[in-house]
Amino acid sequence: MAGGGAAASALSSPWRALLQRALDANAHLKHSTFFQLATVGAAGRPANRTVVFRGFQEQCDKIQINTDARSNKIGEIREWPLGEICWYFTDSWEQFRISGIIDVIDGSSLDPAKLQQREKAWFASSVKSRSQYLGQSPGVPVANDDHIKDVHIDPSAGPVDAYCLLTLDPEKVDYVNLKSNQRLMFTRTQEGDEFNDWMAEKVSP
Amino acid sequence: MAGGGAAASALSSPWRALLQRALDANAHLKHSTFFQLATVGAAGRPANRTVVFRGFQEQCDKIQINTDARSNKIGEIREWPLGEICWYFTDSWEQFRISGIIDVIDGSSLDPAKLQQREKAWFASSVKSRSQYLGQSPGVPVANDDHIKDVHIDPSAGPVDAYCLLTLDPEKVDYVNLKSNQRLMFTRTQEGDEFNDWMAEKVSP
Repeated sequence: MAGGGAAASALSSPWRALLQRALDANAHLKHSTFFQLATVGAAGRPANRTVVFRGFQEQCDKIQINTDARSNKIGEIREWPLGEICWYFTDSWEQFRISGIIDVIDGSSLDPAKLQQREKAWFASSVKSRSQYLGQSPGVPVANDDHIKDVHIDPSAGPVDAYCLLTLDPEKVDYVNLKSNQRLMFTRTQEGDEFNDWMAEKVSP
Repeated sequence: MAGGGAAASALSSPWRALLQRALDANAHLKHSTFFQLATVGAAGRPANRTVVFRGFQEQCDKIQINTDARSNKIGEIREWPLGEICWYFTDSWEQFRISGIIDVIDGSSLDPAKLQQREKAWFASSVKSRSQYLGQSPGVPVANDDHIKDVHIDPSAGPVDAYCLLTLDPEKVDYVNLKSNQRLMFTRTQEGDEFNDWMAEKVSP
């Protein structure tokens, strides 16, 4: 059965049930799929920006994020691939801090499976969302507002060069519910390459 | 005139007008004063958590945050005092990324002016907010919910040992408005010890 792996993965990752509940409880808010991704940039400077949750990679817990391959963070993440997501749900007062290793998947990847994931994530985005990768490089000085113009993209065309998929593979999840004042710490224990278990511990908030 | 310094400071920091406008526009949302603070922890791991804006320090641009002196981040910030705030306003679709140096001000500070700031920030917090510093250390394993109990605090008593004030002194502010698709980069230029100017540049979003 195709969904078996995903279901088994969800079962073995107890925090995913909490996260799904939070997503459902806050689904009426557009920003409920927004979170802040912290990474470490040049000279050890912390960097932090809002990004959009693009779902989990199939049959595992990797969190998908779309980004522009031309943004500064790509080089920084390749250099130092650690990240921590801070995801605060404004209606249910729940926070998930999810730390793990980030994989940068752009068009230069040599792994066919990763290129396929990237293509899949590209087509899962709206056409409007895709068209932003045809605009000017982010963070470049502009003299006027000429960069704000309509760009048209062929809906059937595959990912453009500037499109990059990031996946964060969670190693630790720190969950706190500010209404019930409960905090749970989930830690992944790795044995070998393939099998991972999660340990959960109740800690003081 | 007592307010002169603050007014002059606000004038010399053009991003503060934008931030104040965002705070006003989103004031109906409780979470509009919440932002995510990224720092770098042990072994260069990024750390990210939601904290509450406690206003600016008087007559300067330093951003105040209350925290528990017993939390992991205190040692981490002392070791590596750089931070980046990511402040997303969910109603006006504006993001401020504010990076700078963090000062940790707990009861052991030897600077009387800093101790006074800490005391002032303590009394500016609600009594309920103050009482959390009498609870168990954050992040400690708990066997049951005994830690959730009412603690009472004398409203006239000064800061307890566990109360720590953080101030972040902004050096760079990256502002983006997702409705107008405008992005501005503010950078502080330091000349000498006392006088700082801000440079603003329009960049592509």
